[in-house]
Amino acid sequence: MFSPRTSVHEVEEGASLSPKFDEQGLISCVTTDVTSGRVLMLGYMSEAALRLTIETGYAHYFSRSRRKVWRKGDDSGLKQEVVELLIDDDQDALLMKVNVAGNGASCHVGYHSCFYRRIPIGAERRANPSLRFIEAKKVFDPLEVYGDVPNPTQL
Amino acid sequence: MFSPRTSVHEVEEGASLSPKFDEQGLISCVTTDVTSGRVLMLGYMSEAALRLTIETGYAHYFSRSRRKVWRKGDDSGLKQEVVELLIDDDQDALLMKVNVAGNGASCHVGYHSCFYRRIPIGAERRANPSLRFIEAKKVFDPLEVYGDVPNPTQL
Repeated sequence: MFSPRTSVHEVEEGASLSPKFDEQGLISCVTTDVTSGRVLMLGYMSEAALRLTIETGYAHYFSRSRRKVWRKGDDSGLKQEVVELLIDDDQDALLMKVNVAGNGASCHVGYHSCFYRRIPIGAERRANPSLRFIEAKKVFDPLEVYGDVPNPTQL
Repeated sequence: MFSPRTSVHEVEEGASLSPKFDEQGLISCVTTDVTSGRVLMLGYMSEAALRLTIETGYAHYFSRSRRKVWRKGDDSGLKQEVVELLIDDDQDALLMKVNVAGNGASCHVGYHSCFYRRIPIGAERRANPSLRFIEAKKVFDPLEVYGDVPNPTQL
């Protein structure tokens, strides 16, 4: 499914899929909601996860905390159906536009998007450096949805 | 500017900025055009790049090929003014909404977005696996804009 990376010109301007996986064997994937256009999450795919995503049309990621490929939604029901999958200029990042099943949420903490806090910048930050929540309320209760599945966040 | 990561709860639900930099000292940053909502690029920030971005309100990244912090637009004129900066649940990814100066492009190859090619999936891929270009035409000529600045793409 993947072609070798033979020249910068072919990688940037060609029609061959030649993804670059990093030292851990992973490629970054930005996932957006195709309806709202909102960025939902930044995940990682291994070769196997990318193959499965392309073959099945459902988002598969590699969990760095659990060290395995997972189909998004297997625990939570919040499956992501892939509508459009894009790759960037040097083919080391993916952009995936999805339809999210169920309540439309994608964040394990319970929010729509993983990006639910704003960092104040410039003068606003000098006045008060606290993060500001941009989602007033969670969409779901993670305890109800995930039960005792280990939290993927690591310190 | 950055607080220590003391608990998963504080990292996920707190108001302290505690970004997680990886083994290379970098954090991923998804950059979108605040007007169109389009994802422009996926870049990386070092601690210094993130500090400068927060302090100045202009996007600074860490170039992995040149091994240094750069202010986006210093070579091309295509500066990115930060309108909103968000951080994700486990604070290992940023989402930055920007106004792009000049022609609005952000990709060194000459396109608006770095994500100018689509990977066909499922049955469409089985019929023809070639990448499809979703931007018909470049916005600028990279040779004119960058001259002999080395191409950041690496094989």
